[in-house]
Amino acid sequence: MALFRENILDMSGYVPGFQPRETGFVKLNTNENPYPPSPRVKEALDAVAQADLRKYPDPFCEPFRQVAGRILGIAPGRILAGFGSDDILRMIFMACVAPGDMIAYPYPTYSLYKSLAEMSDARILSADFPEDYSLPEELIGNNARVTLIANPNSPSGTMIPAARLAELAGSLKGILVIDEAYVDFADENCLPLIERFGNVIVCRTLSKSYSLAGIRFGFAVAQEPVIEQLVKVKDSYNTDRLSQAAAVAAFSDQEWMRLNAERIREQRAVLAAGLEALGFSVWPSQSNFVLARTPSGASAPRLLELLMERKVLIRYFAQRRVDDCLRITVGAPEEVRRLLDCLGELLERTAERKT
Amino acid sequence: MALFRENILDMSGYVPGFQPRETGFVKLNTNENPYPPSPRVKEALDAVAQADLRKYPDPFCEPFRQVAGRILGIAPGRILAGFGSDDILRMIFMACVAPGDMIAYPYPTYSLYKSLAEMSDARILSADFPEDYSLPEELIGNNARVTLIANPNSPSGTMIPAARLAELAGSLKGILVIDEAYVDFADENCLPLIERFGNVIVCRTLSKSYSLAGIRFGFAVAQEPVIEQLVKVKDSYNTDRLSQAAAVAAFSDQEWMRLNAERIREQRAVLAAGLEALGFSVWPSQSNFVLARTPSGASAPRLLELLMERKVLIRYFAQRRVDDCLRITVGAPEEVRRLLDCLGELLERTAERKT
Repeated sequence: MALFRENILDMSGYVPGFQPRETGFVKLNTNENPYPPSPRVKEALDAVAQADLRKYPDPFCEPFRQVAGRILGIAPGRILAGFGSDDILRMIFMACVAPGDMIAYPYPTYSLYKSLAEMSDARILSADFPEDYSLPEELIGNNARVTLIANPNSPSGTMIPAARLAELAGSLKGILVIDEAYVDFADENCLPLIERFGNVIVCRTLSKSYSLAGIRFGFAVAQEPVIEQLVKVKDSYNTDRLSQAAAVAAFSDQEWMRLNAERIREQRAVLAAGLEALGFSVWPSQSNFVLARTPSGASAPRLLELLMERKVLIRYFAQRRVDDCLRITVGAPEEVRRLLDCLGELLERTAERKT
Repeated sequence: MALFRENILDMSGYVPGFQPRETGFVKLNTNENPYPPSPRVKEALDAVAQADLRKYPDPFCEPFRQVAGRILGIAPGRILAGFGSDDILRMIFMACVAPGDMIAYPYPTYSLYKSLAEMSDARILSADFPEDYSLPEELIGNNARVTLIANPNSPSGTMIPAARLAELAGSLKGILVIDEAYVDFADENCLPLIERFGNVIVCRTLSKSYSLAGIRFGFAVAQEPVIEQLVKVKDSYNTDRLSQAAAVAAFSDQEWMRLNAERIREQRAVLAAGLEALGFSVWPSQSNFVLARTPSGASAPRLLELLMERKVLIRYFAQRRVDDCLRITVGAPEEVRRLLDCLGELLERTAERKT
């Protein structure tokens, strides 16, 4: 008897983006926010009594449910907090997916969906996105237990209109997960679908727009019967006293988040225009990163390397459809400038070598 | 098609102990440490730059691996950090247990094992502890994929000698999890078994002896091939920047932990003697709580209620073997005093009503 399950022995596991231990990098590889979290976060953390750390946290993070419910206009009972939205996704798989069950998602997308499907020993329906990253027709009416759509999508940064996802939700017998990790950088969102569809779960995270990747806090929004089942598979205390305090404070400060999201949207336009001027093809992004196809003749993995030598980190995926592309997080103005300058210099040199 | 798995729909989920939102309780129900965490924790938390919270944490919490490795005399690669030891247990189930597989544990024990088995749709071999809470013979050489032993055990507080668990480990083809959540209050531990057995995983938590239930940090110790598989199923970032800082600081201060553990052991003796003087039977505890059978004629659930009216919280389990018992966390001297005074008064009144 092997100590581990076959599907686990066979899988390679999700590989997160490179997190350098040294400082001094222009870090545009893991879609972190270039701006710090709301100053209210520090106040809230300072207010957590040290002595209270000896006691277990609120199992449901009720204060967050209340605040988020009020701000989003949703009943608190339809909100479930988690240790990052990855925790929410894990709960959904645990609650819905048995070995051999079907999981569906478009390709290419957030690679954790595949890792979770492999952990669950699920079958996978992976439907290629069309070149414009609109919803793959193949997903409409599919028979999967869980269909996952990152919207905006990663690594493309593109978005499927909410109306189209409503059609998808209505066509499915299983759960539709709409992963809105990047939605605060977009023009619309799918929260209104929760009212209409009992099979929709919207996931959000505070890692990106709220500048809190370091504390791991996310949440699910769904109708009460769905939340009720997810609760059964959540860790008893799946958020902690410090992350709870930080999350409530950050979410309360919508103005701070909106201001930073607006600055990022502005720089997104600067970055996209700069890349296009250098000969890249850029997909229209609704996120805090852009996917850019390299100009003909320029190798994407080579650019990744050369940028890293200059201490500029971006993301490259050695996989079909995007192996000639770079995914670049939208940074602060000086970071965007530095990236574009480096790329301009590298491409010029490549062009010179050719002539 | 149901949206959720049958086994999830059928299960009720783990019920954590009552966490009152109001203050003023003598809280002896969830085995929290009555003393605050090391002052180094506050220093470490203050030193986490607010701006850094926007960035993802170290995926493996390497500084903790280094510190714990050095202190415990274990290679850092044999240590895996998690979001509480519940996260470690969840990873073990995910990596080892498919639906229909067998899970084994003694009864009564930490009820999360049953919840995890139900989530995994596993079959359960539940072996009754003998009255003295020594290792149930039935577990030796069992065919389960995973055998779980909380040592010290909850709710009994009792301990199985390491030598006996070594015998058990050698008799099993599957994984043996030794859950040492309470081991810092005990006379020995099972870490030396890791060297000898490739199928043993020892789980530890910082919730109890390090007074950090509020931050959720635990870890596994096992040989490298086991850690390698668990890594595949862990959340990419399963500890956060704040909990990492707190955990490293708390673990570094062994003296603080030892001092508090010693004070708790002293009060454990006071509590046990006090309960026995009141007519309770107390199992020999190696933990930070005791299990006490009520004097004949006194109803355990009634005592629970009456104590709660006096704002003293203890734990009662309405289940076979322990439904005539109270589980009482060892608190600070004044809390132990208060508990014993209340119990004395309540039992006297019961006795008066009878005469």
